[in-house]
Amino acid sequence: TNQLTIAGRTFNSRLMTGTGKYPTIETMQQSVIASGCEIVTVAVRRVQTKAPGHEGLAEALDWNKIWMLPNTAGCQTAEEAIRVARLGREMAKLLGQEDNNFVKLEVIPDAKYLLPDPIGTLEAAEQLVKEGFAVLPYINADPLLAKRLEEIGCATVMPLGSPIGSGQGIKNAANIAIIIEEAKIPVVVDAGIGTPSEAAYAMELGADALLINSAIAMAQDPVAMARAMGLATEAGRLAYLSGRIPIKQYAAASSPLTGTIK
Amino acid sequence: TNQLTIAGRTFNSRLMTGTGKYPTIETMQQSVIASGCEIVTVAVRRVQTKAPGHEGLAEALDWNKIWMLPNTAGCQTAEEAIRVARLGREMAKLLGQEDNNFVKLEVIPDAKYLLPDPIGTLEAAEQLVKEGFAVLPYINADPLLAKRLEEIGCATVMPLGSPIGSGQGIKNAANIAIIIEEAKIPVVVDAGIGTPSEAAYAMELGADALLINSAIAMAQDPVAMARAMGLATEAGRLAYLSGRIPIKQYAAASSPLTGTIK
Amino acid sequence: TNQLTIAGRTFNSRLMTGTGKYPTIETMQQSVIASGCEIVTVAVRRVQTKAPGHEGLAEALDWNKIWMLPNTAGCQTAEEAIRVARLGREMAKLLGQEDNNFVKLEVIPDAKYLLPDPIGTLEAAEQLVKEGFAVLPYINADPLLAKRLEEIGCATVMPLGSPIGSGQGIKNAANIAIIIEEAKIPVVVDAGIGTPSEAAYAMELGADALLINSAIAMAQDPVAMARAMGLATEAGRLAYLSGRIPIKQYAAASSPLTGTIK
Amino acid sequence: TNQLTIAGRTFNSRLMTGTGKYPTIETMQQSVIASGCEIVTVAVRRVQTKAPGHEGLAEALDWNKIWMLPNTAGCQTAEEAIRVARLGREMAKLLGQEDNNFVKLEVIPDAKYLLPDPIGTLEAAEQLVKEGFAVLPYINADPLLAKRLEEIGCATVMPLGSPIGSGQGIKNAANIAIIIEEAKIPVVVDAGIGTPSEAAYAMELGADALLINSAIAMAQDPVAMARAMGLATEAGRLAYLSGRIPIKQYAAASSPLTGTIK
Repeated sequence: TNQLTIAGRTFNSRLMTGTGKYPTIETMQQSVIASGCEIVTVAVRRVQTKAPGHEGLAEALDWNKIWMLPNTAGCQTAEEAIRVARLGREMAKLLGQEDNNFVKLEVIPDAKYLLPDPIGTLEAAEQLVKEGFAVLPYINADPLLAKRLEEIGCATVMPLGSPIGSGQGIKNAANIAIIIEEAKIPVVVDAGIGTPSEAAYAMELGADALLINSAIAMAQDPVAMARAMGLATEAGRLAYLSGRIPIKQYAAASSPLTGTIK
Repeated sequence: TNQLTIAGRTFNSRLMTGTGKYPTIETMQQSVIASGCEIVTVAVRRVQTKAPGHEGLAEALDWNKIWMLPNTAGCQTAEEAIRVARLGREMAKLLGQEDNNFVKLEVIPDAKYLLPDPIGTLEAAEQLVKEGFAVLPYINADPLLAKRLEEIGCATVMPLGSPIGSGQGIKNAANIAIIIEEAKIPVVVDAGIGTPSEAAYAMELGADALLINSAIAMAQDPVAMARAMGLATEAGRLAYLSGRIPIKQYAAASSPLTGTIK
Repeated sequence: TNQLTIAGRTFNSRLMTGTGKYPTIETMQQSVIASGCEIVTVAVRRVQTKAPGHEGLAEALDWNKIWMLPNTAGCQTAEEAIRVARLGREMAKLLGQEDNNFVKLEVIPDAKYLLPDPIGTLEAAEQLVKEGFAVLPYINADPLLAKRLEEIGCATVMPLGSPIGSGQGIKNAANIAIIIEEAKIPVVVDAGIGTPSEAAYAMELGADALLINSAIAMAQDPVAMARAMGLATEAGRLAYLSGRIPIKQYAAASSPLTGTIK
Repeated sequence: TNQLTIAGRTFNSRLMTGTGKYPTIETMQQSVIASGCEIVTVAVRRVQTKAPGHEGLAEALDWNKIWMLPNTAGCQTAEEAIRVARLGREMAKLLGQEDNNFVKLEVIPDAKYLLPDPIGTLEAAEQLVKEGFAVLPYINADPLLAKRLEEIGCATVMPLGSPIGSGQGIKNAANIAIIIEEAKIPVVVDAGIGTPSEAAYAMELGADALLINSAIAMAQDPVAMARAMGLATEAGRLAYLSGRIPIKQYAAASSPLTGTIK
């Protein structure tokens, strides 16, 4: 089988999505289904503050089938992120996921590029691991930082392809490839993917999973794009397992001719 | 519906594959099925000479479901290609496709890069159109040549992504995008695609279809790669129709926070 | 020595520039000097019609030092281009270049992308070679067309990097590299270069020379950009001759340490 | 004027080179001169251990003209790097540079990719700044880490283009561009550059300077490549200041024709 396992829990899809930025809650529901995903990340702060589009989240998705991944979006320091992570665990319980100790850790002091703080992220991760969380930290694609986070017990690392919501694609493939090569925990590429080709490419590099939100939620047709991203994630995984042809400088005929008709 | 129509004939898949280069005929059969394709190209000369792997082609595929696209691989001049195209029409009749007038036109004097001759291709295309063929010419991605071929009545143009079998991917996307923008006939990207991400990318550019052979047949697991290519072609098409997010220089939060918990 | 020879004539710079699009004639004069170029292309039609900025061309440059390369810009057919090429020869004589039989051949029916017509270019080239011209044809980067033009006696081929004035850079490096590999005549990359890095890159690929106009003339500081392009052309040529380091997947220390201080 | 100022000291070249990896000491001497550089980095540990090629360093270069930049290559921890930095200061004094407090800080626990440790680098930088060093830290291209290092008082940041000696070029341009946009201290792109086009590209992005060693020292002709790198650095800087043309999707004629000759 070809399943994704994170912190001992197994999933049938390697695509994770989100709940934010959709035009309507119905579009969000249909998109989540169309994507085939089994993990959906939720901004804890947004739910707590009953921000628009997050009032009926408990009823909006089938939390028996979808694993909730609380995230600490909006936290600028390690302290904030730790506090919000704890709230996330309570939120998961309210949704009936008693044993859900997952947290997508975001420590983002930068409002312009929404890039994560490596030092604050490491500090918060250390504390949250101690408290028994399965920590999925959002990081810049720094192989040494990824290694450090693995060593202190994180469940995954989530390097970014390019800034959140930018749709620039995978701008640092070389570093992501090194992270994948060195990691013993799953590597989830998060942020920046804008198209299915970019999703497939990340999977072909050997990523274990992807998290895609803006590219789906803000597409002109989110439901169709969700389906496209699901297909592309699977295509990229299959290709990674199937052994691509080597790249050659010269041509090699598809239809070699051993004889000819003169 | 989202079907591909070439020369008045409609197909449910936008991926075309081939019969050459597979390790066994069984692998070829399973890969064609796994890809979901409805068009398979066959090198006429190879069949005529009963080259290895092409003896039982009549029985190998279900020609009631798969449309045969004879190709003129191995022809170095317009004259040769015209002659082989006529043989291809006879071959289609033997397979029970009485009305099959398709021909994938290849005029390739160059053995190293297998790049097509624009002058010979144009000459052969003019003659074959006069003889009633639906001509699908294999060309370098030259927008003016593509326009010329459309004007003389070709059914499609088939610009190459990179040299045949090289697996280099789409190396001339700018020109292919211009061809797509200007063409009123379907544009089929042919040759060079090595991975599903490259297949999806070509479709996202707006290509109407793809022809992929080596990347499937010579993968370590051709059947799985065939499936991956089918999924990626569909994903790319869906994305093209779904309206991707714009590319931004700066970030845009997936989970905007209008309120905060202090 | 490291000189450029075209049609038996030798030059000390591998950069060619133009006269169009400059804000003032003084800027043009200074930019030509700053670039270090010895070949300047001139649109014959523009001079003939005394278009703005082209009135005083005879006096504007030192035609004892600068070789004039008449071009057939604005010609949509082979016939027009042949006629304008002949006018160009007369124009060169008026400038005192009695033996100047050079012509940059442009046959461009397409107003949007200004891409050349391969068929019309080939026809015009055949005629002009017969008439004793040193023909420098502007072409899409099609290796087979380049080969054909070489066989009929052209002095160079001038493949485009991307559409004229687009500043997109070298968008078809794979095909240009094949043209360079196969050609026995000089290969001049023409059109599309926007920055010195792109100029250097084309030279590193092995191009024999570059023609750059818009990127210089329309920069905010044309004279400084002209100097930058001259330096980059030389840097790229030097690098091509100097044997670059191989690309490695892994690191290799700049400062290997055989001993350590403990 | 267009000079580079680091920690209050001004230089006339924006290219820095090294002393390692050259085939002979004479080649190193000539290459340093050909490059036009005024800063040369030296591995302190290598000099201390009198490793091959580093015996006569005091006499090899004219330390009245060349500013010595001691580096901590070979240090795996903050502690080691701090110790070696102090040795570097002594070394500079022996060369007659009494007021040279520069140190290129490398903390590299990873032997395969030679990537720097962000945490250890930050720790060492904090200590060295306290001790009065002008600290030039070698870092992965992480904008938040760069900001942190600026805040604690580093003299520059030196983000890597790709792994040391790999010649892969600038693989993370998006992050480097963000670092440049946000930094108030000079940004020096260090490691990975293989060709002049890549050097020019980094400067066009707005980098203040470059450090290039392997690509020069290990080229087949180091002296010529050194000259090429010097020219390219200057070309890239000039282009950055000159205001490049915008990138357009469509063409724009170099020689617009307002009238025609019929």
